[in-house]
Amino acid sequence: MSSYADRLKALREQLKRDRLDGFVVPLTDEHMSEYVGAYAQRLAWLTGFQGSAGAAVVLPDEAAIFTDGRYTLQVRQQVSADDWQYVSVPAISMAEWLGDHAPDGGRIGYDPWLHTRAWVMEARKELAEKGAELVAVDTNPIDSVWPDQPAPSDARLSVHDDAAAGKASAAKRAEIADWLAERKADAVVLSALDSIAWAFNIRGDDVSHTPVALAYAIVNSDGTADLFVAPEKMTEAVAQHLGNAIRVHPRAAFAPALMAFRDKRVAADPERAVAAIFDALESGGAKVLSLRDPIVLAKALKNPAEIAGHKAAQARDGAALARFLKWFEETAPAGGLTEMSAADKLREFRDATGLLKDLSFDTISATGPNGAIPHYKVTAESSLPIQLGQLYLVDSGGQYADGTTDVTRVMPVGEAAEEMKDRFTRVLKGHIAIATATFPAGTCGAQLDSFARAPLWEVGLDFGHGTGHGVGAYLSVHEGPQRIAQPYYPGGQSLEPLKAGMFLSNEPGYYKTGEFGIRIENLVLIVEKHIPGSEQQMLGFETLTFAPIERTLILPNLLTQNELAWLNEYHSRVVQIIGPKLDAEERRWLEAKCAPVS
Amino acid sequence: MSSYADRLKALREQLKRDRLDGFVVPLTDEHMSEYVGAYAQRLAWLTGFQGSAGAAVVLPDEAAIFTDGRYTLQVRQQVSADDWQYVSVPAISMAEWLGDHAPDGGRIGYDPWLHTRAWVMEARKELAEKGAELVAVDTNPIDSVWPDQPAPSDARLSVHDDAAAGKASAAKRAEIADWLAERKADAVVLSALDSIAWAFNIRGDDVSHTPVALAYAIVNSDGTADLFVAPEKMTEAVAQHLGNAIRVHPRAAFAPALMAFRDKRVAADPERAVAAIFDALESGGAKVLSLRDPIVLAKALKNPAEIAGHKAAQARDGAALARFLKWFEETAPAGGLTEMSAADKLREFRDATGLLKDLSFDTISATGPNGAIPHYKVTAESSLPIQLGQLYLVDSGGQYADGTTDVTRVMPVGEAAEEMKDRFTRVLKGHIAIATATFPAGTCGAQLDSFARAPLWEVGLDFGHGTGHGVGAYLSVHEGPQRIAQPYYPGGQSLEPLKAGMFLSNEPGYYKTGEFGIRIENLVLIVEKHIPGSEQQMLGFETLTFAPIERTLILPNLLTQNELAWLNEYHSRVVQIIGPKLDAEERRWLEAKCAPVS
Repeated sequence: MSSYADRLKALREQLKRDRLDGFVVPLTDEHMSEYVGAYAQRLAWLTGFQGSAGAAVVLPDEAAIFTDGRYTLQVRQQVSADDWQYVSVPAISMAEWLGDHAPDGGRIGYDPWLHTRAWVMEARKELAEKGAELVAVDTNPIDSVWPDQPAPSDARLSVHDDAAAGKASAAKRAEIADWLAERKADAVVLSALDSIAWAFNIRGDDVSHTPVALAYAIVNSDGTADLFVAPEKMTEAVAQHLGNAIRVHPRAAFAPALMAFRDKRVAADPERAVAAIFDALESGGAKVLSLRDPIVLAKALKNPAEIAGHKAAQARDGAALARFLKWFEETAPAGGLTEMSAADKLREFRDATGLLKDLSFDTISATGPNGAIPHYKVTAESSLPIQLGQLYLVDSGGQYADGTTDVTRVMPVGEAAEEMKDRFTRVLKGHIAIATATFPAGTCGAQLDSFARAPLWEVGLDFGHGTGHGVGAYLSVHEGPQRIAQPYYPGGQSLEPLKAGMFLSNEPGYYKTGEFGIRIENLVLIVEKHIPGSEQQMLGFETLTFAPIERTLILPNLLTQNELAWLNEYHSRVVQIIGPKLDAEERRWLEAKCAPVS
Repeated sequence: MSSYADRLKALREQLKRDRLDGFVVPLTDEHMSEYVGAYAQRLAWLTGFQGSAGAAVVLPDEAAIFTDGRYTLQVRQQVSADDWQYVSVPAISMAEWLGDHAPDGGRIGYDPWLHTRAWVMEARKELAEKGAELVAVDTNPIDSVWPDQPAPSDARLSVHDDAAAGKASAAKRAEIADWLAERKADAVVLSALDSIAWAFNIRGDDVSHTPVALAYAIVNSDGTADLFVAPEKMTEAVAQHLGNAIRVHPRAAFAPALMAFRDKRVAADPERAVAAIFDALESGGAKVLSLRDPIVLAKALKNPAEIAGHKAAQARDGAALARFLKWFEETAPAGGLTEMSAADKLREFRDATGLLKDLSFDTISATGPNGAIPHYKVTAESSLPIQLGQLYLVDSGGQYADGTTDVTRVMPVGEAAEEMKDRFTRVLKGHIAIATATFPAGTCGAQLDSFARAPLWEVGLDFGHGTGHGVGAYLSVHEGPQRIAQPYYPGGQSLEPLKAGMFLSNEPGYYKTGEFGIRIENLVLIVEKHIPGSEQQMLGFETLTFAPIERTLILPNLLTQNELAWLNEYHSRVVQIIGPKLDAEERRWLEAKCAPVS
């Protein structure tokens, strides 16, 4: 295996052959995915950086890697300072840096299948001041010098039953056709992998933890569609499920299909479709409508079948988690556990359900100081022994055919310190404030976020992440368009109006650097609240996740009567919903954990 | 006096002479002021519309008036449907309407001294699709056909004492010079009237209720300045106060001065400076930096002298309001009062302080159903008799040389209904939630707004305006850049980070259409909160307004112990601060109104 210095050198030689003075390396794929397949891990291959978000720029005499505040330390550990400058975004954007550092009159390459058009325009503008040019490449130069680059996954597609989906693909496509008719549009391009999975009621196995397949699609105004997917992914069952109204083509046919829309009105999503899609549509003479992918909102509004499926998945997943918590409580104080062994044990309990398809993300199994790193991912190197006096935080979830879960619990190892209990109780107060909130339809997540923080603010504390994200139905564990977060949270999701039927996580936390971390996370469903005398449609949350919230970490004196009532009612529902899935001894343990607090 | 139909006809004839196919009539002045002088009331002259925000477009065969939701009813009462179409913004913007209705290839006139450049670009884009053109006029065609148009006010300037301002103009200009140096800029154009008043420690009397003078200014990187103001406004005292470093010119010299900045870097604020200012700078060859007016934030951060002055003004104003409330309580139940006579009486109490310069806005004196109109303004025609069983709402304020006040109180006439008390108590809970909030530095108003609404949301209610606005120091009663409001509140002020030293109003309300209105408004100061163990700088509010909150409208059972403690502490401060300014009988009344509630 070549060294990272050798790889950088090979890339620079390739750039010379391609007559380029630089190249931009983002961490994404042709679908603007949050998690990408191994073949698209070009940034990691080139630099060694293992974080989930970042980018790099390579110039003839210098190179820079761009990461956000979460990765300030990690990038310095993983990427050599001999070859790379570290740049913090968003303080300095990659486009700005390019504008400052690109050689005068230089040609900077980019792969148009890996950037939004907005980025291309911004970078082009920054480079223009130097007389430098941004040049689209036909072949990604990294692919030319990466000898053992994995092929894209060839995993088979599978059918997502209409019963679980709650609506047949034909009905979904009829709704998209209506949406097109309202906009006098002829077709819409779908490139987000979860939108495609949702529209056709299919699932895949090309991205770890997210059951989607690498594909593109076009839905037409007559409700027919074109699906672009590697032929080896098809099965007889999928072909039959798709039927005649969905024409299947190889992926290579996608760009030519975009170029065949002369004088047609075609919708594409500027945040989700890459620049190459817009380029192809325009070069073929289509009139492009820059509109949000209509599936983004449709998919977020869960139907009764999806909600029922999700609740079944939650009960199953909650029982597995409860078994783990019991095992942890009984095992951890004696010593010998590690973050890694605990995560493996939790996986065993989920596997034992017999229905687990995958974890919904890499388990965050974090003890003591590692708990204070909100996006910590346990690896063989980082795994710490779990020790008496620590707090142990576990954030995990499962992918089941009927639902996607995501839950965080915190356990003491032995007796916790008073400070830990105070912080835990304040986080719980914030959690309950969200769980019990009532708000008018049209309210956005940014208007609720502070309710989760106020009990911490009161004593001069806060937490450094959003309060909640959307969740898919056997799809992505992070799903838009809604979010509970500060109004200035990047991406604008916290300004999306909340609607009945949406799933959200409710996950306030508190992190004391170097000592401990706390997060209490349940998933919730937005429901209509019928209030006598109400002057408008009001909404609230129904909690969907059921697992005990550690009672020994709660200081009851800090809770109001209403908060205590919520906690006790919640725990009685935990017993009711997951109790029947446990054996007698486990149930006794659960009932004790869920006894009223006062 | 000509009819509105005649005026419209006269304008259309003028447009023909000017070879224009249309003209746009906004309601603003050359300074983008919220309130404008009589000479700039072109919209009211043309259409009869008396609201505080709106615009019109006149085309050869049709004309439209654009108003927002506050004025849906009023515009139909005041503006003839024979001549005018009513268009609701923001559902349809004036630029969009122009794009739909302008004649193909037409020439639409606009006065470049009355629009931002952003508006000009938007309208130009919409018109381009019709091959129509937006044309800047040299002379506003309304001025050509408005025979008795008032002249701009010739009121004298006055000096705002350095002692009250807390900082001499030279020191303020030195700070602006530092700001310019950081941006390598040579000068900044000031066109917002309150920015100019603040920068030079001068006040004027050209706009009702706001002590500003019609002027422009340019501050240079050496700390000198050019002030463009009608010579008749100058006095010996003002000339001496301004000194040699501020050169005074007539207003007509402003545009030529802008055109003399060839190759210089000049800052101008795209939200506050009109298009004509950018046009003049660019035509003269300046490099224009589109930056927010640096005074906007500087002026919002009150210094110790401004805070001390404001507190003195509040004590004086609170005593006058308390006298009024006592008089009202004793007089109103017997009948015979009207909204107008009550407003006049309140003015008498403020006048009796001997220090009132002006009201800070037209008093909202509203009984019963009129209270449910948040922006109600009492006139001879609208004034209702004040009757038993009603709620009476009074929102008012005074301009004093040491401070600008703004306060709202609600009084029952006789005994109030239970529903009124419930709503009043919920509004009070929201008010207390803001008054007692603790939040990290950097938090914006949008993150606090929901605290004021939650007690109403709980029972399906809300209020249809923001929770708080900034306030000037003997300047505008509505001042930016900060605001407490929903994150999507127009103008983005609710996303401005809050900082210690800012003034805000705290004014949640509740409005039952056709029946009653409630609002409880105090002004607050943002202060640092020192919390033991705090991990970051925390802020909170110190309440500045002191006047009794009507105890007979409070349902103590709806208040928590903390809320009751706040109320009782607040009322004990009311007695302490305004008690000494009252006579013995008034003080006895005040003490009874402020006795602890439990």
